[in-house]
Amino acid sequence: MVEKDIFSIFPVSKNLDGAIWDKINRKIKPVGALGKLEYLAYRMASIQQSLEPVLAKPQIVLFAGDHGIAKSGLVNPYPKEVTYQMVLNFLNGRAAINVLSEEQGIAVKIVDAGVDHIFNPGYCLIDAKMGFGTKDYRFQKAMTKEACNQAISKGAEIAAKIADEKTNIIGFGEMGIGNSSSAALIMSALCDFPIQECVGRGAGADDAFLLQKTETLKKVISYHGLTKDNPPIETLTTYGGFEIAQMVGGILCAASKGMIILIDGFISTVAILVASRINPLVVDHAIFTHRSEELGHAKLLGFLEAKPILDLGMRLGEGTGCAVAYPLLRMATAFLNKMASFDDVEVSEKSDK
Amino acid sequence: MVEKDIFSIFPVSKNLDGAIWDKINRKIKPVGALGKLEYLAYRMASIQQSLEPVLAKPQIVLFAGDHGIAKSGLVNPYPKEVTYQMVLNFLNGRAAINVLSEEQGIAVKIVDAGVDHIFNPGYCLIDAKMGFGTKDYRFQKAMTKEACNQAISKGAEIAAKIADEKTNIIGFGEMGIGNSSSAALIMSALCDFPIQECVGRGAGADDAFLLQKTETLKKVISYHGLTKDNPPIETLTTYGGFEIAQMVGGILCAASKGMIILIDGFISTVAILVASRINPLVVDHAIFTHRSEELGHAKLLGFLEAKPILDLGMRLGEGTGCAVAYPLLRMATAFLNKMASFDDVEVSEKSDK
Repeated sequence: MVEKDIFSIFPVSKNLDGAIWDKINRKIKPVGALGKLEYLAYRMASIQQSLEPVLAKPQIVLFAGDHGIAKSGLVNPYPKEVTYQMVLNFLNGRAAINVLSEEQGIAVKIVDAGVDHIFNPGYCLIDAKMGFGTKDYRFQKAMTKEACNQAISKGAEIAAKIADEKTNIIGFGEMGIGNSSSAALIMSALCDFPIQECVGRGAGADDAFLLQKTETLKKVISYHGLTKDNPPIETLTTYGGFEIAQMVGGILCAASKGMIILIDGFISTVAILVASRINPLVVDHAIFTHRSEELGHAKLLGFLEAKPILDLGMRLGEGTGCAVAYPLLRMATAFLNKMASFDDVEVSEKSDK
Repeated sequence: MVEKDIFSIFPVSKNLDGAIWDKINRKIKPVGALGKLEYLAYRMASIQQSLEPVLAKPQIVLFAGDHGIAKSGLVNPYPKEVTYQMVLNFLNGRAAINVLSEEQGIAVKIVDAGVDHIFNPGYCLIDAKMGFGTKDYRFQKAMTKEACNQAISKGAEIAAKIADEKTNIIGFGEMGIGNSSSAALIMSALCDFPIQECVGRGAGADDAFLLQKTETLKKVISYHGLTKDNPPIETLTTYGGFEIAQMVGGILCAASKGMIILIDGFISTVAILVASRINPLVVDHAIFTHRSEELGHAKLLGFLEAKPILDLGMRLGEGTGCAVAYPLLRMATAFLNKMASFDDVEVSEKSDK
């Protein structure tokens, strides 16, 4: 059932565009004076196909997974145990994403997509475990094709359930020591960019570590020999991780449900890149919340012709960009829905001389 | 009494800096990963000299005034009546600043600093009227020196009253058809920049209008012959307006009260430029909320070595930049006060190899 949903994404109609922009432009302010807030108002009205968009029950879903490569320590200065340790902090409400989301009334759900740890059940934990981490892609594919498809399905199921809760805006975040390497490998293959333009410092590689990370990934690329001509699912299967695959499914399903999709940083953007190769229409449903400091992100945003809202030098993941951008979306809907227009009140307009 | 307050601004001590950054850096995230949110957390802790900064009863004060030059229509494509019409909309809660502030729980006060209109008293209107607009600076000084000093005092009184209300964070906004020209003239004189690098499109001048505006202001500069060596109060007296002079006093007083000062766009930044010439310590109390699209703003921010938080292509004034940046300040205090640290919970740190 999920499979069918995934592929039935409606294109966002342009029919309302004229009416939306007319409404924005009739607000009592110079045309364009609210800058990106106007763009956001347009995007939300457009995705919801409504002149009065409403943000209902915002949720950020944080997909966590471990990576086989991380055991080697070749690509990650932090040990792989940090993945499960941070999940425990998410579950206890003590990490950045919890604190930032709480401040804005955003609910946070944590998905165990494949962490190398057994968690106690908790009300904000979603158990979608695909295993205790992926395989090390230096020597084999990160997962089987069946597992990859299953992960996509599970991600879609999670998003479908969230849509059933009457949430109409969903943010995608992630946690997984090593996942900036997975993301860089996927980006390099799908976009045909050299790996050194895709790989960055992740959670904090210094110059020497970055060199080691890059050299490691170059060898991985030689070993698997994937190019842009391989199917996106094969690339995802090869490089992982489970959390990225579940995000791909979640994004596709969220678009099929007509939700506004908030994309966080580099890893989330790679997830929508993969999703867009399965169904290009997903991008019309997405808002790119920020440009992160991770090296490949700016290039990937450019490739997707995405216009990120914020540029705050953030590089944490977890969905933190979604949380930080959310109040701007709220303010954009507020001005569109509540601000007076030149038709309501007396304000002289610009002279046309 | 106000005069004395104005000049007793304490320097922001650096004594806590080490402890503040240590607290930020011990949060469970890679060092620096929250980007500008970390800078904001530092600034608020520093201004409040507290490791647990608190934002109390945020207010945005919008100073409105008319400009003698605006009657000529030479520098403003919108007629001067828009000033009072917009004040009526602010008072009715229907303009951008009202709607954006309401969304974030920020109170808005409107100051009649010198609008060419008589308003009915209202609970959010502060009557600080200096007259029905300034004089046309093409032929004389915009105001007398006495009026300028009085406006500064009135602005300071307003800020002092807001401090008495236990507000510890105050945003400065403005409205006044023609005031981007006043601001450009002041910036040009105080910073010794050519006027064409200071003058912009304001509320919406097209290319031809911008040329006319620039040529008009060049003649005004020749007429008065002010340079960077003239006292700042003389420049303020010459070019006005009343709303800018009141903001200068308000900013100086807010700094003397230890409040966090939020600066909006071009006009507000020129107000703090003038204030900084009276007492350079004000800048240590200010957060520059955004870089506006108005041409001179980026250059002026650079001159003040200011680090604006947002860059959203906004150019509305009214204090809208303060409203839009405020949730980021809230989130910055939230992470500093509530997020776990490496001392509280178990998270492995980066290997030092």
